[in-house]
Amino acid sequence: MSHAVSPLAPKTVPEMPPIAGVRFATAEAGIKYKNRTDVLLVALDEGTEVAGVFTRSKCPSAPVEWCREALAGGKARALLVNSGNANAFTGLKGRETVRISAGHAGRTLGVEPGTVFLASTGVIGEPLDPAKFAAVLDDTAGRLADGPWIDAARAIMTTDTFPKVATRTVAIAGVPVTINGIAKGAGMIAPDMATMLSFVFTDAPIAAPALQAMLSKGVEGSFNAITVDSDTSTSDTLILFATGAAETRGAPRIADAADERLADFRAALDGLLLDLAHQVCKDGEGARKFVEVTVTGAVDDASAKRIALSIANSPLVKTAIAGEDANWGRVVMAVGKAGEPADRDRLSIWFGDVRVAVEGARDAGYSEAAASAEMEREDVRVRADIGLGEGRATVWTCDLTKEYVAINGDYRS
Amino acid sequence: MSHAVSPLAPKTVPEMPPIAGVRFATAEAGIKYKNRTDVLLVALDEGTEVAGVFTRSKCPSAPVEWCREALAGGKARALLVNSGNANAFTGLKGRETVRISAGHAGRTLGVEPGTVFLASTGVIGEPLDPAKFAAVLDDTAGRLADGPWIDAARAIMTTDTFPKVATRTVAIAGVPVTINGIAKGAGMIAPDMATMLSFVFTDAPIAAPALQAMLSKGVEGSFNAITVDSDTSTSDTLILFATGAAETRGAPRIADAADERLADFRAALDGLLLDLAHQVCKDGEGARKFVEVTVTGAVDDASAKRIALSIANSPLVKTAIAGEDANWGRVVMAVGKAGEPADRDRLSIWFGDVRVAVEGARDAGYSEAAASAEMEREDVRVRADIGLGEGRATVWTCDLTKEYVAINGDYRS
Repeated sequence: MSHAVSPLAPKTVPEMPPIAGVRFATAEAGIKYKNRTDVLLVALDEGTEVAGVFTRSKCPSAPVEWCREALAGGKARALLVNSGNANAFTGLKGRETVRISAGHAGRTLGVEPGTVFLASTGVIGEPLDPAKFAAVLDDTAGRLADGPWIDAARAIMTTDTFPKVATRTVAIAGVPVTINGIAKGAGMIAPDMATMLSFVFTDAPIAAPALQAMLSKGVEGSFNAITVDSDTSTSDTLILFATGAAETRGAPRIADAADERLADFRAALDGLLLDLAHQVCKDGEGARKFVEVTVTGAVDDASAKRIALSIANSPLVKTAIAGEDANWGRVVMAVGKAGEPADRDRLSIWFGDVRVAVEGARDAGYSEAAASAEMEREDVRVRADIGLGEGRATVWTCDLTKEYVAINGDYRS
Repeated sequence: MSHAVSPLAPKTVPEMPPIAGVRFATAEAGIKYKNRTDVLLVALDEGTEVAGVFTRSKCPSAPVEWCREALAGGKARALLVNSGNANAFTGLKGRETVRISAGHAGRTLGVEPGTVFLASTGVIGEPLDPAKFAAVLDDTAGRLADGPWIDAARAIMTTDTFPKVATRTVAIAGVPVTINGIAKGAGMIAPDMATMLSFVFTDAPIAAPALQAMLSKGVEGSFNAITVDSDTSTSDTLILFATGAAETRGAPRIADAADERLADFRAALDGLLLDLAHQVCKDGEGARKFVEVTVTGAVDDASAKRIALSIANSPLVKTAIAGEDANWGRVVMAVGKAGEPADRDRLSIWFGDVRVAVEGARDAGYSEAAASAEMEREDVRVRADIGLGEGRATVWTCDLTKEYVAINGDYRS
């Protein structure tokens, strides 16, 4: 379970400011891990608005079902997260665990259970005992504070090799507001989900429907544009909480996502989501290289994204990148198998800035040395131009190494 | 390039009888490999009927395009195959190579170039020099014989660790006919294609449209039901040749695939295709386990197959199997991400005959020891019952090991 920190981990960790209206603490509940925190409890001030995006798995975890229902109210007062057990595929018992835990957290904090959001990550199919939460909740609630955020990020880790945090400060109508985010995830990462777990907090006063519109849009180019292994989790959860505390400092309350005063906030939120998504990708199990795949010239953007994901999910492309092999033939293969409109004889391929193939054949000026030099970088860029239209998309992945196999061959035991 | 023989290789190789009307020879053309055969030339008697199934890649190789055109005539007189270079994504030059090679083979054997079928397997994107064929064709044509078939299978290998052959003898209207098949393929194996390369020969007198109907149907449950790594090749080719020579021994000429006299032949052909497909799977790059995935209770057969492939292609399922870890939670995940109708609370999962999960939760009688014992077998069976309908499908794959990564991380160099 303890692996060396990914070589792709950020070299510096940002200073995370407090967010007015958000207090939290972590605990060692011994759910699966020993001698590390595995529970995060967050208390949110009254008036906190909430939005969420969840896995599209047909077999979602009990907490995901709970959050979907809780989201309907648009209000949040608490978040309770655990690592080590996903409470997924645990049947009626799993639903009971969720109900009991939300009830307990609600009583402890003096809030409605229906405003308590829950998330669990870890092994699937093992019953999660609500007594584990019960044993630590009172003590944890007594230690709530406005930092340090890195501890919150650490408590939700599973096979992650580093905690993932990001922060942005931006003005709404001249009043500075803050956005903080944490994330976890290293495997079972694929699009059509919101990564394993990510929680974003802001003091901006924004109504739930506007938050939801921004979050649903922002996730497309970030968490839904990364893939580690094409496997979609049962538990993926991204929740955005807005306490509205900045209103006391003069920030206007905004109800419409299209409000122009939100332009900077929206850009900052998108940037923060992408930052966290990239960190998840850079902690891809066994990853040694961060890979950006851009597809241009597809018939439309959706087609470009499907082709880009076909490249990014191809085991043969990913192993070639691990081996620093400029094997562009495998990129051709991945374009061809995507099932999207493509014309072999209009296809061009680049590694970094080196064009290796053009119009259906190897580039006349092809240099193995130049192509190989691109593959030796830690950040590898692959581009395919389909030559049919204006569709464009970028997705991110990591290489596929023997360590991925080693990590996943003995995860449960 | 030389890896130890797969532990899943068949323990015995069948005696391959000659097929009247089929003669062949192999050669060392030095296309990429040294000191091994890399060219197979097959001469087919006049009257040979032909059917084929090819990759659905949007970027097919030049030989695939050639074969698709040649197939329209329904007649075949020769087959020329090489390993070491796929002649894929080689532009106009690749098409020239195909045209020149078919012309040369046609002249050498005294047949129309349009009845010469071509197939190439190996690296994508490297120009294939037709002079390599020219240098060996005359000599090869002088050595044509009706065996040994194992040599034909060997000449078309790339990363294969063992040659793949299969044979069946069956009666049509009381007259025995023979079916022989060879195949190659170890990586870049996924459904919606006909495996890398497979060629099947029979002396039965069956017209091309009937052959095509049987082949297209037979491929669904065999070559299109195996997956090694979900990557579809640009070159996948399965061709069935029927010389009709058994007519001289009294076998009736049959024009309709629905003809009842073909019932045994059809079953034998299906069995041979499945045999070869299983061999390809058992030679999956780095494979240590052969995995059968059966899905029952889906809303229909097509849905069952998509769920089965979602399980069989999941890197997390495949690494768990490599690690002999009875991690059925990953099977739940793969069912959930398939995008097909599924209801978590009706889902049941088995490893071998051990039911590990039922109705959305771990089986009450779950025994880790019993489940683990199933995972320690060389042949691992996974079954998921969706609980919604009568749809059913079985697919086959292999585990995902560190050796797969090692083999594919330095294939080209």
